[in-house]
Amino acid sequence: MSVAIIGTVAFDTIETPVGKRDRLLGGSATFSGIAASLYDDVSLISIVGDDFEDENFKIFHDRGIDISGISRVPGKTFHWKGYYTGDMNQAHTVQTDLNVLMEFDPIVPDHVKESDIVFLANIHPVLQKKALDQFTKPKCVILDTMNFWIESERDSLLALLPQIDVLIVNDQEIRLLTGESNIIKGLSMVIDLGVNRVIVKKGEHGSIMYNGETMFMCPAFPLISITDPTGAGDSFAGGAAGFIGKHDGITEEIFKKAMIQGTIVSSHTVQGFSLDKLKGLTAEHLELKYKELKGMTDFPVFSI
Amino acid sequence: MSVAIIGTVAFDTIETPVGKRDRLLGGSATFSGIAASLYDDVSLISIVGDDFEDENFKIFHDRGIDISGISRVPGKTFHWKGYYTGDMNQAHTVQTDLNVLMEFDPIVPDHVKESDIVFLANIHPVLQKKALDQFTKPKCVILDTMNFWIESERDSLLALLPQIDVLIVNDQEIRLLTGESNIIKGLSMVIDLGVNRVIVKKGEHGSIMYNGETMFMCPAFPLISITDPTGAGDSFAGGAAGFIGKHDGITEEIFKKAMIQGTIVSSHTVQGFSLDKLKGLTAEHLELKYKELKGMTDFPVFSI
Repeated sequence: MSVAIIGTVAFDTIETPVGKRDRLLGGSATFSGIAASLYDDVSLISIVGDDFEDENFKIFHDRGIDISGISRVPGKTFHWKGYYTGDMNQAHTVQTDLNVLMEFDPIVPDHVKESDIVFLANIHPVLQKKALDQFTKPKCVILDTMNFWIESERDSLLALLPQIDVLIVNDQEIRLLTGESNIIKGLSMVIDLGVNRVIVKKGEHGSIMYNGETMFMCPAFPLISITDPTGAGDSFAGGAAGFIGKHDGITEEIFKKAMIQGTIVSSHTVQGFSLDKLKGLTAEHLELKYKELKGMTDFPVFSI
Repeated sequence: MSVAIIGTVAFDTIETPVGKRDRLLGGSATFSGIAASLYDDVSLISIVGDDFEDENFKIFHDRGIDISGISRVPGKTFHWKGYYTGDMNQAHTVQTDLNVLMEFDPIVPDHVKESDIVFLANIHPVLQKKALDQFTKPKCVILDTMNFWIESERDSLLALLPQIDVLIVNDQEIRLLTGESNIIKGLSMVIDLGVNRVIVKKGEHGSIMYNGETMFMCPAFPLISITDPTGAGDSFAGGAAGFIGKHDGITEEIFKKAMIQGTIVSSHTVQGFSLDKLKGLTAEHLELKYKELKGMTDFPVFSI
């Protein structure tokens, strides 16, 4: 199948306890696109400014990603400046320059409209809907969002949910969305909002998937150090979307495997700045890590 | 095999968002003893005051627990008063009356000295060592402790660790013990302190076991509500100890199953006050929950 991703391409300025970096390639479409490209054919729909040089596109070309849906317009590319301290569980924003993102009006190229998997990465819910409505027959629509939209664009976000197969949120976001502090309780409340399936990311504590009937608790990959958590959530979702796209049928088992693959991809993302650790991942390495995680979590079917 | 447990028997006064209860049967030996008795023969070594009535002993008799090692002396039984708010992740102490616990000098009855499994529940490390040294040939010694001893009795605690097979701590305690905020990194630092194996409890996020070579990440049992978290850690450890005791050999697989069983037992403890949900558990129910947890966490060996 094929994966279309709508989201941001950005330049990031980031400081973590490990170091400080300027003009890093970032954004939700970038991280999720590179992650998805580890598994399947990917098209990106986004916008950049004229400060986005040909060399900046190189990584997308290298990964065989279709960027005909990325508009390059006069002005500056979206820029985020932030820092992390301590255990890096929380991003602190210093500055957000939307720049050309203010003009973003997602146009899905004709040859991308028949994509099977659509990942609506974190942008304004109205733009997410506008993009989604251009696809002709998506088999699986995945949505990411953030606290900001849940609070400021709640109505347009809620209106979009019944069109969504998989909603991906983190632990804070599901609490904000449902008003319920117990995540397990919140899962069914999200299903009641009209999505078919919800995945809650809990950082170092793994993730939980719920389809209204069964639950899957996905472990995190244990790490002894983190370099930069930026893009962890995007590459988790992108990795999962790409893995789903790689397979013909979409089954419960595929979803589980996709979550584990997303977990592994994002565990690499956070071990470097920007795409440093992500871009060179191979299928062999991913499968090795998959088996490693299986080995660390497996236990017998019967206790007796 | 058989399990001997050294710890406290207490009366608790507890307030949680669900309600307030007075003179609840509690203490580390109580919770872990009842939990262990779900699987194996158990002897308790503890101390109570003369306010501890015959009827208070009934639950131990009902579960077939040997209480010949519980001294009943003039004075009042150890009493803890505390409360929990919000998500109940943190116990707040209002009052601790050590009472007869001040006189506790653990004497292991002769017929208990040959116990195979020794669980040193949370008391002063010097008393833990004194108790341990009375056993003739324990096959597995499990130690629990708490922040208070790690800070105030660090030297005696560290001196005890090389005699320990399994150290059980929570996420805060391993950080305090090792000075390392990353738990995964802390695991090998604990092994360097001389224990053979460490288990870190992370509450709703499950637990991790490390033996110096391999890691096992154990999921939590998802719960939509909690009544009272008191005794969760004790019943986790007691359940695991009892499960290990029930089996002839002590293998890596037994340890994994024991952690899952401890997880299930403690998930019941927190759904009621005191021993309300714990005391009636049956082997059939535990096995059912074991399989349920397996179903919620299992994923295929290969992703391809």
